[in-house]
Amino acid sequence: MNFIAIDWGSSQLRAWRIEKGACTAQQCVPQGIKFVGSGQHEAVLRTLLAPWWEWIVTAEVPVLMAGMIGSDSGWLDSGYQALPQAASAISRGCIAVPSSLPIQLWLRPGLALRQKERANVMRGEEVQLLGALDCAQADIYVFPGTHSKWVKPFHRGEEIVINAFSTAITGELYQLLLQHSLLGAGLPREDAFDVQAFTRGVEESLHSEEGLINRLFYARSRRLLGYLPATAVASWLSGTLIGEELTQLARHSLATDTLALVGDAPLTDHYLTACRLAQRQATVVDAQTAMLNGFRRIYAAL
Amino acid sequence: MNFIAIDWGSSQLRAWRIEKGACTAQQCVPQGIKFVGSGQHEAVLRTLLAPWWEWIVTAEVPVLMAGMIGSDSGWLDSGYQALPQAASAISRGCIAVPSSLPIQLWLRPGLALRQKERANVMRGEEVQLLGALDCAQADIYVFPGTHSKWVKPFHRGEEIVINAFSTAITGELYQLLLQHSLLGAGLPREDAFDVQAFTRGVEESLHSEEGLINRLFYARSRRLLGYLPATAVASWLSGTLIGEELTQLARHSLATDTLALVGDAPLTDHYLTACRLAQRQATVVDAQTAMLNGFRRIYAAL
Repeated sequence: MNFIAIDWGSSQLRAWRIEKGACTAQQCVPQGIKFVGSGQHEAVLRTLLAPWWEWIVTAEVPVLMAGMIGSDSGWLDSGYQALPQAASAISRGCIAVPSSLPIQLWLRPGLALRQKERANVMRGEEVQLLGALDCAQADIYVFPGTHSKWVKPFHRGEEIVINAFSTAITGELYQLLLQHSLLGAGLPREDAFDVQAFTRGVEESLHSEEGLINRLFYARSRRLLGYLPATAVASWLSGTLIGEELTQLARHSLATDTLALVGDAPLTDHYLTACRLAQRQATVVDAQTAMLNGFRRIYAAL
Repeated sequence: MNFIAIDWGSSQLRAWRIEKGACTAQQCVPQGIKFVGSGQHEAVLRTLLAPWWEWIVTAEVPVLMAGMIGSDSGWLDSGYQALPQAASAISRGCIAVPSSLPIQLWLRPGLALRQKERANVMRGEEVQLLGALDCAQADIYVFPGTHSKWVKPFHRGEEIVINAFSTAITGELYQLLLQHSLLGAGLPREDAFDVQAFTRGVEESLHSEEGLINRLFYARSRRLLGYLPATAVASWLSGTLIGEELTQLARHSLATDTLALVGDAPLTDHYLTACRLAQRQATVVDAQTAMLNGFRRIYAAL
């Protein structure tokens, strides 16, 4: 099992060298698709792979890519596989990318829920999902991030089937409010995580009778009136938004449903804290482990 | 009843000349507090009032100011009057501003709800509120905007008392999402209001089982999958956010409570449409009418 796995996102381009199933080298460069002009992807990839080039060409090692590189502003619009799909069918979904490079180049399309009211898309998380399904048993797989995904697979005989998922814009709202809103204006640059403020935000989202659109203003009014220190605003906002995400999740799942949080610390730590407060049983699956396991399944299905 | 009324906000500086109770002239200049440096306010005001100066000085006409000019980044931090307050006490709340100008200069402080959990502030709307109480009978007074305010006064004998209010960050979220988020990226510059998309957004906020943090992503996923035209995204988002504001309002009020919407078209038209969909009885009070009536009450109480 020799291949190159590439997660080419909006900001970052990450590559892993997989030899006999194990990761033997990796690279990460800040050349996400928003920094790479149309027609330049081939050259960027060629440069990235230069240290491994001889091995790739000699051993005919395939290069598997996923992420925003397959979007309409990436290298080639790979479209979306329409749900429902069995995990085995998602593993087989790659399309070949024509290029002038003497290598086999594959691109993972996204997944789409094509329903007018619940229309939803993911791109990149589906690889982590394939891997996470193998790493951890859970009822719901959560991919915290800019646009958090929640997937609840079901079993049909031997198959695991994905027929729906949701997205919460938790991470993007957090960034927007801190960087561009009046709520975030004039905050000290403060990286310290305030667990008390975070906890208070989560608890209020879990139990308050007020809606998010009202509670968000407390980031400003409590600060102005002295009830929330400026240094705690970011942590409180994070707790409020993650708590809101879990509250919405709770509405559509059983209290006994277990969660697998696929991601990296410190974000997964914050989600774990929020899950404890929400009395949700949750485990963490490391994002890279899930991603590489997913690519292994995709490689095996090529 | 001769006075100058000034609404000095973040972006705009507006002034009205009130002679014998009637507005005989007005000015609006883009010299909101974010464009005026510390120590410059007196000079800006002197220039603004130059056309009316002789009248002001000769007739000893007082100048009444409200809005962000009284905030900690304005001319003088006027603080907040703590609730509960009777409307009559709010009318009497002005403080004198020391200056080197030979005029009487008054500044309206804001209103604050000093409760740890429900801490809230307003600045400027309290003048419109005083005026709106005289213009229109309603159970709840709504001030749509960047940070929408909802006030439910109650009667104590002859007095009208304000003891609480809420804020929804409806307008700010709308601007953030359109201008800075991935949801708004690549939208056509399109001013046409799409009433169908707006209505759909309101209806979903009123009736959907999904939370706002999930539904907002539809601005992107429905567009990508062809269910929402790019030209309709802004109207759909507006409907979704205004609908959410009304949904939260509905939770904390009686279905029979009537609303007074204090503002300007087209925003008040959109709120009226949303109120009809939510089966809420609402009337509109023109923002300037409310503001000048409020200043008349303040002047009378000087």
